[in-house]
Amino acid sequence: MTTTQARTEPDDAPGTDPHAGTPGAHGSGHGPHGYSAQKDAHLKRLRRIEGQIRGLQRMVDEDVYCIDVLTQVSASTKALQSFALSLLEEHLRHCVAAAAEQGGVELDAKVAEASAAIGRLLRS
Amino acid sequence: MTTTQARTEPDDAPGTDPHAGTPGAHGSGHGPHGYSAQKDAHLKRLRRIEGQIRGLQRMVDEDVYCIDVLTQVSASTKALQSFALSLLEEHLRHCVAAAAEQGGVELDAKVAEASAAIGRLLRS
Amino acid sequence: MTTTQARTEPDDAPGTDPHAGTPGAHGSGHGPHGYSAQKDAHLKRLRRIEGQIRGLQRMVDEDVYCIDVLTQVSASTKALQSFALSLLEEHLRHCVAAAAEQGGVELDAKVAEASAAIGRLLRS
Amino acid sequence: MTTTQARTEPDDAPGTDPHAGTPGAHGSGHGPHGYSAQKDAHLKRLRRIEGQIRGLQRMVDEDVYCIDVLTQVSASTKALQSFALSLLEEHLRHCVAAAAEQGGVELDAKVAEASAAIGRLLRS
Repeated sequence: MTTTQARTEPDDAPGTDPHAGTPGAHGSGHGPHGYSAQKDAHLKRLRRIEGQIRGLQRMVDEDVYCIDVLTQVSASTKALQSFALSLLEEHLRHCVAAAAEQGGVELDAKVAEASAAIGRLLRS
Repeated sequence: MTTTQARTEPDDAPGTDPHAGTPGAHGSGHGPHGYSAQKDAHLKRLRRIEGQIRGLQRMVDEDVYCIDVLTQVSASTKALQSFALSLLEEHLRHCVAAAAEQGGVELDAKVAEASAAIGRLLRS
Repeated sequence: MTTTQARTEPDDAPGTDPHAGTPGAHGSGHGPHGYSAQKDAHLKRLRRIEGQIRGLQRMVDEDVYCIDVLTQVSASTKALQSFALSLLEEHLRHCVAAAAEQGGVELDAKVAEASAAIGRLLRS
Repeated sequence: MTTTQARTEPDDAPGTDPHAGTPGAHGSGHGPHGYSAQKDAHLKRLRRIEGQIRGLQRMVDEDVYCIDVLTQVSASTKALQSFALSLLEEHLRHCVAAAAEQGGVELDAKVAEASAAIGRLLRS
């Protein structure tokens, strides 16, 4: 199964990056949102999930038995949830903790926001 | 709709590359597993999900705010689950129904298999 | 941190069961909907889940540490999903299989109904 | 951090409480874990869920159509998840925020613990 993912194109149009002006700021791994430190790990995970989705296309294309396709869907969903969880953990560690230092309204807003995100994950 | 399951055609996959220049080989949509009739719809869904996963990579790459990334993860998970559900519905309609005609052991096996797949989806 | 969980009171007063006095009303166990054969097993499972929910009330009441409460919530949710799955499996084996013998519209309706139920479980 | 939660009122209408007879066992109600402020709300939710589980027993007992039972299971699961979410939100607001003030190892431990709990919820 080739999940090659060759990428010859220039990376993701930095010109359209809202954070542009500091393109070098990524990669260095100290982004503004906590998760940048582990950016490479996140991207690697997501590329693997992309490979799984491509694998699903091949399976459907080749008339693989539905139950086997479903097993692979479960694996992909699990991988996505696991990615979400690691993102969330970083968010709690950095953003929510930072808000806690400010306390009050700021903290309440961050916690409500994180809880809403967890609620969406639970329902998906 | 005939759930005949007859497979007189040579098995897809003479070449190794699924997508290699034989688009007409599939598309005919009369595969052995029930879901082939909707193969195009399935592939379209999966391509959209693949696009969502790539979108996630861009978001991470551009240091988009974690909560917004999580919202997109929820959307992708939901899309995957919805794909699984449509696959499962076809499976029940064709494979399980076909097994029901044979009854007994065959039906029990198919139902147990489908239930196990549903269980995996619930836990993912 | 007190995770005491001390339980000095007699457990859940079995004598107060609202269904108590009418045991003979059920028990026949051969209902019209497939799952009756396993009715006793189902009721036993549900009673255990009810006990878990009561346990949750005690935990909250005794200020047990939130994470421990959450662990118990996860166990109860899992037990509910597992109950749902066994119910669904019986439904497929009996109702959907019966519909398959009639075929056509009847089968389509039953499969659509079962799929919708599975969808609700996935989203809950 | 003060999560005082003083509770001077008599606990939970002991007259209607099925667990009555031991009202004094709890009642102090000013626990260390953040969620006590909303203890009454939590207990009310849980009692409603307990009622739903009893309703499920009645449905099974009366041979209600499986799909309708499954719909009720979905509702109960949703209610449990919603309860978990409100508990988690309080936990983040109080315990995790308190840990954030201490920072370092303490915060890391709390965040890892909360993330593990969220992971269990996602998988249940």
